[in-house]
Amino acid sequence: MTTKEKLYEGKAKIIYPTDDEQVYLTYYKDSATAFNAQKKGTITDKGKVNCAIASALLTYLEKKGIPTHFIEKVSEREMLVKAVKIIPLEVVIRNIAAGSLCRETGLPEGQILPQPLVEFYLKDDALQDPLLTPDRLALLNIATPEQITQLQNLAKTINQHLIEFFQSCQITLVDFKLEFGLDHQSNILLADEISPDTCRLWDTQEQDKEKRVMDKDRFRKDLGEVESAYQKVQTRVLNQIEKLENS
Amino acid sequence: MTTKEKLYEGKAKIIYPTDDEQVYLTYYKDSATAFNAQKKGTITDKGKVNCAIASALLTYLEKKGIPTHFIEKVSEREMLVKAVKIIPLEVVIRNIAAGSLCRETGLPEGQILPQPLVEFYLKDDALQDPLLTPDRLALLNIATPEQITQLQNLAKTINQHLIEFFQSCQITLVDFKLEFGLDHQSNILLADEISPDTCRLWDTQEQDKEKRVMDKDRFRKDLGEVESAYQKVQTRVLNQIEKLENS
Repeated sequence: MTTKEKLYEGKAKIIYPTDDEQVYLTYYKDSATAFNAQKKGTITDKGKVNCAIASALLTYLEKKGIPTHFIEKVSEREMLVKAVKIIPLEVVIRNIAAGSLCRETGLPEGQILPQPLVEFYLKDDALQDPLLTPDRLALLNIATPEQITQLQNLAKTINQHLIEFFQSCQITLVDFKLEFGLDHQSNILLADEISPDTCRLWDTQEQDKEKRVMDKDRFRKDLGEVESAYQKVQTRVLNQIEKLENS
Repeated sequence: MTTKEKLYEGKAKIIYPTDDEQVYLTYYKDSATAFNAQKKGTITDKGKVNCAIASALLTYLEKKGIPTHFIEKVSEREMLVKAVKIIPLEVVIRNIAAGSLCRETGLPEGQILPQPLVEFYLKDDALQDPLLTPDRLALLNIATPEQITQLQNLAKTINQHLIEFFQSCQITLVDFKLEFGLDHQSNILLADEISPDTCRLWDTQEQDKEKRVMDKDRFRKDLGEVESAYQKVQTRVLNQIEKLENS
């Protein structure tokens, strides 16, 4: 592991600089938070599992033509990524109603949406990551209208690729959160991670509403068997990647 | 006052049926609530003041060509209105950043918006009247796309009329909430009230950030002199109406 001083420590990862100023090293922690960090805990080996899943999925998306920050996985908990300046937006893509969408609209959990919903949240802990209407997003001058359109299009394309990938793992992609960054040439790259921390994933074969949950909702809602659910996602994702590579 | 059983009791008003099923009687109460009814209190004579202000402003708007539910003021606290089915949306029009917009985006209070912002909130106490993005609004099937467009256009037109009217009262219209209803022929009518309960109104001549407040924020923020502020709005509004009638 690097001995340099960290650039940034988030809830689940630490970012370090490297000798190359265009490259960062991301270290995946086991700590877990929910409800804007009001709930804190540890998911044993989450760092390893999420680093493995995120590496696999970012590589998969890169091969599908999505520009990502991923360079390579260098240890169990570490990946090298392109240095980007994170756009302070959480881009949430929803295929099925769950979580805050249900709490805030009364839509029943599990309702399939007529089309994927792309929502923007301000990445701001002090403001509790508020939902932004398109008008509010425009007011805040966080991104240009062209960049917003690009983010929406990227989000929808990524969603299509991930729905298909997870389907082949017998996993239903309910919703997920993406973050994007700008590289030194102002290109938009998919950044952060894709993992059971950032996706709602339901076991497609399982009908029971609690048993089907394979993501951080097990931690949020104290459903138990958090570690084994994350492990199961890792196994299915890596097996599918191997299958694709050998086909 | 009517002796019939009430149809509906809200936080600030009671709706009674009348002998004509196309007509309701609205009774204005003195009770005041804020923060989704977590804060409760009484503003002495608010019912009278708001009934007078709302009657004057609804009449004014009707004369400007806005379809409203207002028929006539029949006593100090009562008005007859056309029977409508309320569309469960709060339509908020913002000219200057204040209140939840500031809390949720970090925009500084008092920032003039480049153009009026029309926002929709779901009128649902249990869900705490959540802000709706256009996509969420469409998902909920509360109104047709054509009705939404009509509501937006009505809101903008009403805003223009009210900005102008309040300006002539030396009052700055910061933001306000409207509700609309459908009559028996499905025409959209402006309903509910327009008053210091539903508008943020700042004394245009006053620079002091607390002293300038002439609306329910005096109650919300415990600024004192709530009754006199409401009275002052009533006096200025009624004087201006009289001036217009005599000109």
